[in-house]
Amino acid sequence: MITITLIGAGNVATHLYNALKKCEKVAVNQWFSRDLTQISKYNTEVSITDNLQELKESDVYIIAISDDAIEDVSKQLPFDNRLVVHTSGSVRLYDIDMKHHKRGVFYPLQSFSKAVELNFSEVPICIEALRKEDFNTLKTIGEALGCKVHKVNTNQRKALHLAAVFANNFTNQIYRLAHEICESEAADFDILKPLIKETARKINTVSPYKAQTGPAKRGDKKTIKKQLKMLDNDMQKDVYELLTKSIKQTHGQH
Amino acid sequence: MITITLIGAGNVATHLYNALKKCEKVAVNQWFSRDLTQISKYNTEVSITDNLQELKESDVYIIAISDDAIEDVSKQLPFDNRLVVHTSGSVRLYDIDMKHHKRGVFYPLQSFSKAVELNFSEVPICIEALRKEDFNTLKTIGEALGCKVHKVNTNQRKALHLAAVFANNFTNQIYRLAHEICESEAADFDILKPLIKETARKINTVSPYKAQTGPAKRGDKKTIKKQLKMLDNDMQKDVYELLTKSIKQTHGQH
Repeated sequence: MITITLIGAGNVATHLYNALKKCEKVAVNQWFSRDLTQISKYNTEVSITDNLQELKESDVYIIAISDDAIEDVSKQLPFDNRLVVHTSGSVRLYDIDMKHHKRGVFYPLQSFSKAVELNFSEVPICIEALRKEDFNTLKTIGEALGCKVHKVNTNQRKALHLAAVFANNFTNQIYRLAHEICESEAADFDILKPLIKETARKINTVSPYKAQTGPAKRGDKKTIKKQLKMLDNDMQKDVYELLTKSIKQTHGQH
Repeated sequence: MITITLIGAGNVATHLYNALKKCEKVAVNQWFSRDLTQISKYNTEVSITDNLQELKESDVYIIAISDDAIEDVSKQLPFDNRLVVHTSGSVRLYDIDMKHHKRGVFYPLQSFSKAVELNFSEVPICIEALRKEDFNTLKTIGEALGCKVHKVNTNQRKALHLAAVFANNFTNQIYRLAHEICESEAADFDILKPLIKETARKINTVSPYKAQTGPAKRGDKKTIKKQLKMLDNDMQKDVYELLTKSIKQTHGQH
């Protein structure tokens, strides 16, 4: 049994706690939040605290808090040389205080919403660790959660985190612009949802490069001109122009 | 039984033919292609022709050819006053020659790849018609295919078609840029696929506006600056900056 102390009470920490408590090979020993009211409803099932000095001994300490606070909290941990990991996509492994020689990263690459329950089998975990046995401990936790586990280095993790901003935030903003365009003519955005689903599904079997279609890919200047003329919103126009240019660049159209 | 003459042999026509031939309430009477070799393998199951003068009588003529050719082909149809429809997202209903008083549009809003079989229950059909009975005929065909059928006007159809360029082509290009960023550090793009799937899934329950998260939405200047610094490709940087600006505009961050 791997024992875990969870530090933090945000989206990631709360989703992790609810998933970890169902796992057989791991046990959450204690849960820390500086604001105890955030986790007080769990006090019948797990030991909770808002005092770092009261932290019990565990095999792993998972720090799931905002990026800016990780370094500071890791310094305040009242022990040396235990396995301490954070869950951030962009914070350096070495930002965990160096008195914890056993450092690691346990980065779940998924979009977490407090309201929506998450199926952890759909959450890839990117793991970094300095020592092989720490990697194996983190891998066991990831697999106990039903996750797919990936060994990454710091640069790979940072690239994945940045690519995730494109794949999640920017894709979602493209959906938003599509929504606006529908609304401008009182067309039902729901009609686009099967296309959005199919667009995401397609790249499971072909690369985004091969999946591309449409006027920019074909170099169809007439349609591009016609569509640009339809857009009367500057931001929509700018996005249309830049992504058309980007597709042309990718596919060698000029 | 509704009889159909299919005109064209591209992606849409071929997918339509293969789906229509399985339907109970409709029958493809004849299939026209100016290049007969495109459809000759079907000649044991349907009457094929490359001569518009040989077209038989049907209840509906579906013109599924490139936008530019629709008007011209509709002019060449050797009969008057039968129901003639096209399948385009952007061509005007009135581009179908006016001697066919029964005109309509039967626009399947989905991404068609020749290689990938399509489940028509995932294809919304946008229908335009001048007469109620023609609308009903087209609706019956759509429903026979298992499609969800939507009544739209020309402006709505054009808006949907333009929004589809965003939701499909531009989204796919965002995936491509994410792929490039992964590759630049030899990180595995597959790790992003569950996030891409979840991003598309999420808007089934919440609007893209509500689904947005991330540094631009939060107005987190520090992370935005750090991430821009990581990008050494101009196009990736331009897209990052523009979509960050767009998210900020949508969510009132400055």
